[in-house]
Amino acid sequence: MRLEFNKEKLISAMGIVFKAIPSRTTNPILECILFDASGDKIKLTANDTELGIETVAEGIIVEKGKVALDARLSFDIIRKLEGGDAPVVIESDSSFTTTISCEDAVFHIQGRDGEEFSYLPVIEKDNYICLSQFTLKEAVRKTIFSAALNDTNKMMGGEYIEVKDHIVKFVALDGHRIAIRSIEMKENYGSAKVIVPGKTMNEISKIMTDDNEKEVLIYFSKNHILFEFDETTVISRLIEGEYFRIDHMLSKDYELKLRVNRTKLLNSIDQSTILIKESDHKPIVLDISENNINLKVKSSYGTMDGKVSCEKTGKDLLIAFNPKFLLDALRAIEDEEVDLYMTNAKTPCYIRDEKESYIYLILPVNFIA
Amino acid sequence: MRLEFNKEKLISAMGIVFKAIPSRTTNPILECILFDASGDKIKLTANDTELGIETVAEGIIVEKGKVALDARLSFDIIRKLEGGDAPVVIESDSSFTTTISCEDAVFHIQGRDGEEFSYLPVIEKDNYICLSQFTLKEAVRKTIFSAALNDTNKMMGGEYIEVKDHIVKFVALDGHRIAIRSIEMKENYGSAKVIVPGKTMNEISKIMTDDNEKEVLIYFSKNHILFEFDETTVISRLIEGEYFRIDHMLSKDYELKLRVNRTKLLNSIDQSTILIKESDHKPIVLDISENNINLKVKSSYGTMDGKVSCEKTGKDLLIAFNPKFLLDALRAIEDEEVDLYMTNAKTPCYIRDEKESYIYLILPVNFIA
Repeated sequence: MRLEFNKEKLISAMGIVFKAIPSRTTNPILECILFDASGDKIKLTANDTELGIETVAEGIIVEKGKVALDARLSFDIIRKLEGGDAPVVIESDSSFTTTISCEDAVFHIQGRDGEEFSYLPVIEKDNYICLSQFTLKEAVRKTIFSAALNDTNKMMGGEYIEVKDHIVKFVALDGHRIAIRSIEMKENYGSAKVIVPGKTMNEISKIMTDDNEKEVLIYFSKNHILFEFDETTVISRLIEGEYFRIDHMLSKDYELKLRVNRTKLLNSIDQSTILIKESDHKPIVLDISENNINLKVKSSYGTMDGKVSCEKTGKDLLIAFNPKFLLDALRAIEDEEVDLYMTNAKTPCYIRDEKESYIYLILPVNFIA
Repeated sequence: MRLEFNKEKLISAMGIVFKAIPSRTTNPILECILFDASGDKIKLTANDTELGIETVAEGIIVEKGKVALDARLSFDIIRKLEGGDAPVVIESDSSFTTTISCEDAVFHIQGRDGEEFSYLPVIEKDNYICLSQFTLKEAVRKTIFSAALNDTNKMMGGEYIEVKDHIVKFVALDGHRIAIRSIEMKENYGSAKVIVPGKTMNEISKIMTDDNEKEVLIYFSKNHILFEFDETTVISRLIEGEYFRIDHMLSKDYELKLRVNRTKLLNSIDQSTILIKESDHKPIVLDISENNINLKVKSSYGTMDGKVSCEKTGKDLLIAFNPKFLLDALRAIEDEEVDLYMTNAKTPCYIRDEKESYIYLILPVNFIA
């Protein structure tokens, strides 16, 4: 096999599939990127058996063939090559000894037989939706932080995607909060309910462009989800089981509604976190009365008092939260004015807009006034 | 005590003295910045007993006094304050309970009695030199990497400064290399030979500006070195003892001189390091013949061959180095063309310019051809 690439284009293609390279594994073939130039195109593939990514790298096939190369080593080598406009040449012999060269720099590394590599599974492509890449990227970014990626409950480490007619919902939750984004699509699609591993969603959102014009097709099958965009395919196993019954957790009742400037509230809470170490579990206490939210934090380092004005409808309330959860939700919203709905110091606080394109539910915590 | 500051100016003054706050200590007063507004100016001081820094913070003294505040906590609080143009107010009562406030955010933390704080030592100011801040910063940056900061031999962790007439030399070395920068000064000063802890020199170079117009006065005393610039004073203990006899280590004899493009040589060596892990101790072998340097690295990851053309005077040579040492030296030089002087595979390689404003000595390593 002999292939020639423009360096930058090769790096960008390798950068995409690299996201499916596991950080730790005892199986060396999983640490490889497959360079498959047995057909007309140069396909790069990485597959950690849970998440698989395939993309096309632009380049010249001087001699057909395929080889699997250690992803980290070959990526490092290619990134370091300096040759101006000179092409990067990858050449493998029948024993998969591979030469990577550019101008006067010649590297020899040992590749592996491409036949060892497990290809991406083939799935049926009848149930799908279409979104802009930017929309998908944003929906993930604005919900995934609520998932508990290291929880023993696998379901909590996933992102729930629900399609119903022309609405797609992205949901993530841990035991203390829920994040929901609803997106209206141009067309009516079928229906789907899947739980995707959080890691997959994180990687997908990193590969997506910020371009609102570029689309991504998302296919749903029984055990897999497949994302297709540009010349790239990402496929991931789904998490099995039935997701939490979100509708049962949400309520529209409230006894207190606050309209508040998002940035001001965010800054005030952010300041208070200086006095709190992660392990402390110190709450931020909100004393809501008249048209003010008075914030108070007390820890072994000192105390902090803040004040943010608001438009209040309803009763006064003294309620406490984990400040991180409030911050995460407020950072995921773009609206300059946000509405907070509460009932009492024991029931959830909701931050949502009128048409419920976003809902952030946060459970309060106990505190000593 | 009650002081009012512009936030940015306070942060910049705290940032300077913060460099003398030790990262780990069991003595809480050493973790404090002293705010001393008992006179006409607001002086901030930090002193870890080895390195001490004092600077003047611009601000309004509403009520005189002094207090020592935990450096990390107060710096974090002040950096997080959001108040547009509103002043940052620091106020302490007689029990040193301190309020840091800006607009609606009010922090209460416990300060300490300023009297607990140990002031910077006073030294005689008769022996000194004057440099531009930029010159000092660059001289440090271009030598200090050769010092062995964690070596059991304390001397190797220091930077040697030697003043003789109108020349000041900066020297750092470990067991395998030496870096020397000589700077011509405008005036004839006295003479001095001091060994300054590497940490002090690192911090000094971080505080210096890139401004060639701004000067720094450096005073030498028996046990201390003092840097005076803008409204800041940095004082450091010296390392006791006599430094290595550098002159005995340097030689002007050579049997081979190479003139080579610095960037090309640097890039080629840099590429080779992909195949080398720090713990590997794999050398880079230079096979110098005709007008080429052929570089070769061999490790368990693979092999790399590179080639850089050069102007050669003298014999051919096969010699090996720790690639990191070559890289460090080549990165510290600005000249586009550099001269390398060698004798045989067992004796040092010198990289130096004609007037010896810089000399980098690197010992070769053994290798199997």
